[in-house]
Amino acid sequence: MTGSVLPSERGMAVDRVVADLTKLRERAPLVHCMTNVVVTGFTANVLLATGASPAMVEAVEESGEFAAIAGALLVNVGTLTAELAGSMRSAVAAARSAGTPWVLDPVAAGALRFRTGFATELLDYAPAIVRGNGSEILSLAGADGAAGKGVDSTAGSDAAVDAARALAAARQCVVAVSGVVDYVTDGAEVIAVPGGHPLMTKVTGVGCALGALMAAFRAVDDSALHAAAAASTVLAAAGERAADRVSGPGSFAVALLDELYTLDAAALEQR
Amino acid sequence: MTGSVLPSERGMAVDRVVADLTKLRERAPLVHCMTNVVVTGFTANVLLATGASPAMVEAVEESGEFAAIAGALLVNVGTLTAELAGSMRSAVAAARSAGTPWVLDPVAAGALRFRTGFATELLDYAPAIVRGNGSEILSLAGADGAAGKGVDSTAGSDAAVDAARALAAARQCVVAVSGVVDYVTDGAEVIAVPGGHPLMTKVTGVGCALGALMAAFRAVDDSALHAAAAASTVLAAAGERAADRVSGPGSFAVALLDELYTLDAAALEQR
Amino acid sequence: MTGSVLPSERGMAVDRVVADLTKLRERAPLVHCMTNVVVTGFTANVLLATGASPAMVEAVEESGEFAAIAGALLVNVGTLTAELAGSMRSAVAAARSAGTPWVLDPVAAGALRFRTGFATELLDYAPAIVRGNGSEILSLAGADGAAGKGVDSTAGSDAAVDAARALAAARQCVVAVSGVVDYVTDGAEVIAVPGGHPLMTKVTGVGCALGALMAAFRAVDDSALHAAAAASTVLAAAGERAADRVSGPGSFAVALLDELYTLDAAALEQR
Repeated sequence: MTGSVLPSERGMAVDRVVADLTKLRERAPLVHCMTNVVVTGFTANVLLATGASPAMVEAVEESGEFAAIAGALLVNVGTLTAELAGSMRSAVAAARSAGTPWVLDPVAAGALRFRTGFATELLDYAPAIVRGNGSEILSLAGADGAAGKGVDSTAGSDAAVDAARALAAARQCVVAVSGVVDYVTDGAEVIAVPGGHPLMTKVTGVGCALGALMAAFRAVDDSALHAAAAASTVLAAAGERAADRVSGPGSFAVALLDELYTLDAAALEQR
Repeated sequence: MTGSVLPSERGMAVDRVVADLTKLRERAPLVHCMTNVVVTGFTANVLLATGASPAMVEAVEESGEFAAIAGALLVNVGTLTAELAGSMRSAVAAARSAGTPWVLDPVAAGALRFRTGFATELLDYAPAIVRGNGSEILSLAGADGAAGKGVDSTAGSDAAVDAARALAAARQCVVAVSGVVDYVTDGAEVIAVPGGHPLMTKVTGVGCALGALMAAFRAVDDSALHAAAAASTVLAAAGERAADRVSGPGSFAVALLDELYTLDAAALEQR
Repeated sequence: MTGSVLPSERGMAVDRVVADLTKLRERAPLVHCMTNVVVTGFTANVLLATGASPAMVEAVEESGEFAAIAGALLVNVGTLTAELAGSMRSAVAAARSAGTPWVLDPVAAGALRFRTGFATELLDYAPAIVRGNGSEILSLAGADGAAGKGVDSTAGSDAAVDAARALAAARQCVVAVSGVVDYVTDGAEVIAVPGGHPLMTKVTGVGCALGALMAAFRAVDDSALHAAAAASTVLAAAGERAADRVSGPGSFAVALLDELYTLDAAALEQR
């Protein structure tokens, strides 16, 4: 980790995570997901298990209409096409007008020009949270040579904390960097969320599902900083518990959904 | 439940369900699925586990050709686009010409105008079965204020039975309303299928898979009414058995597929 | 099996399979997948469990750029559209120029004209490996009446070995026919890979994932013949081990991923 992070870095109070999770389950916020074709089912199942109400609406005829009534919106560019880009533009414009908070997940930004340009363009639509791995955040922050290996990061989350803070300050949003330790920052404060498990990188879509969870938590917590940190904490806790009792990535993915469904205050406090 | 349902409401004879399931496994009907991007994999796995042969064919160049040779067709508008709408029109037109029975699943009809209009238009192509939740069926039947919460119903299935019966009578098709109790009606008779388990609402695509199962059963039973009720019964039975031995929605989805694969006459009679 | 196969048919040395699997896990090759919407998630999970790094990139704006930097490319026409066909053309052209090996999976070739024509056209772009079931390979080899039943084969792999050999010789590529016994041939030599388990046909996308695994192994073994046989061997071994401890296709799919993750030399030598 770079030294500049340390002064303000701290964890998040478990009480607030518990309160957010309770609110999420009570309110079951409607989360409009525009995500990639690889992870649609898993993302929906993560949201359902945690307590939110997911809906994937992609057509340009509907995306703006739905973003305006949803509790939060997720835009993930993992399998971006020109047609989908147009539909996402409608959605984020409507979200901004309607006051619907939205999360940008710039999958593989830095590795491919088309999506890098589009993700950069979307920053102008005032996302509440930008969530990515180290390479993606470095790329959006304008660092040179930030290309990852396909959808995987070639930079640890530690190496991207300064870039995350700068990006958050410049764009007045919250930036979350995922990695061995997750960092969430609003440009001033940095919250570190350690934990999770290496198996989380052996199941497709765990990172993408984290972006969706951040949208769900933002729908019930007005602080994007705390919403993003709560989502990271909940996913890390569920991942640790799931890893305790599995024999590989297949059973891990199943157990992760079960743990998200049953996670309670005691389990969160135990961390 | 509204009183008007009671006179003709009854369950379905277990013998016929068993006979239909046996036929389905013997014939492995080819089920052409045009469904949403969230549930494609799960739908295919539900059909395979039960004994059918699923194939997802979406391109406008192929959808009509394939609908004409399939045993049944499913059209689910969950992630409708204008391009997909054109391809679905080709498919249902070819299905009608060729005598291929088809099922309409009007996901989120009532909540979004584009798909509500399209689903209504498709009613003119003579679906064998329309399957939806309470809000969706109320919407297609022309009730005011029928919008659900995204893809979730805000109306219980009980509240939509009268609308289902009216829609079935008007369109000369079978209408199935999913909920705590499933109802299936041809406009005159109403078959109630109780059972299932709340975890079925915590896994994405269970309702969508039910629509696909109805198509599969219709391919082996000329009565759309009995096919729809048999599909509901089989899924409810498998769901109950699966719920007995799981710890959350992740393990439930896995167990549901296992139960659909092993379900037999004894298990169905035991209900 | 036709007699003409027997003279050159043999298995693959387990040492080489072990060496290839070890290399795959060490190098984690980037596998560019352009596949159908039913199996995207499962394909990615199979590649991750085995040790590769999958990325699904589909847009015409990106597919060529990405194919040029990937370790291998998979093109699967299972849910082909005209738009996707254009993007696949860009990808295979870039792959050929850049020397990226690529695998063609002609899902349902023979059953539908649009995809049969497109898959045949793609043969001109020098795939390293063509993988299909009996009906698909017979169709691409120009046999009459080769149509399968949807995406399922109506011909056993034995019946397609001669066609596979002829196709491989004519196109100077490797052809793999999947079935109860898998056959892999470069037109001269034929490697037979027996094993696997019938449950592999009750989970959607196992065959599609095999094509993806072939791409991953080809990225670490310059012999397309040995790469294809190694992928078949690894999947068959994992499938046998998974089937030993499951109660249906749901738990089988989960166990298959776990076995791919933990498979080692001892398990492969034990076969």
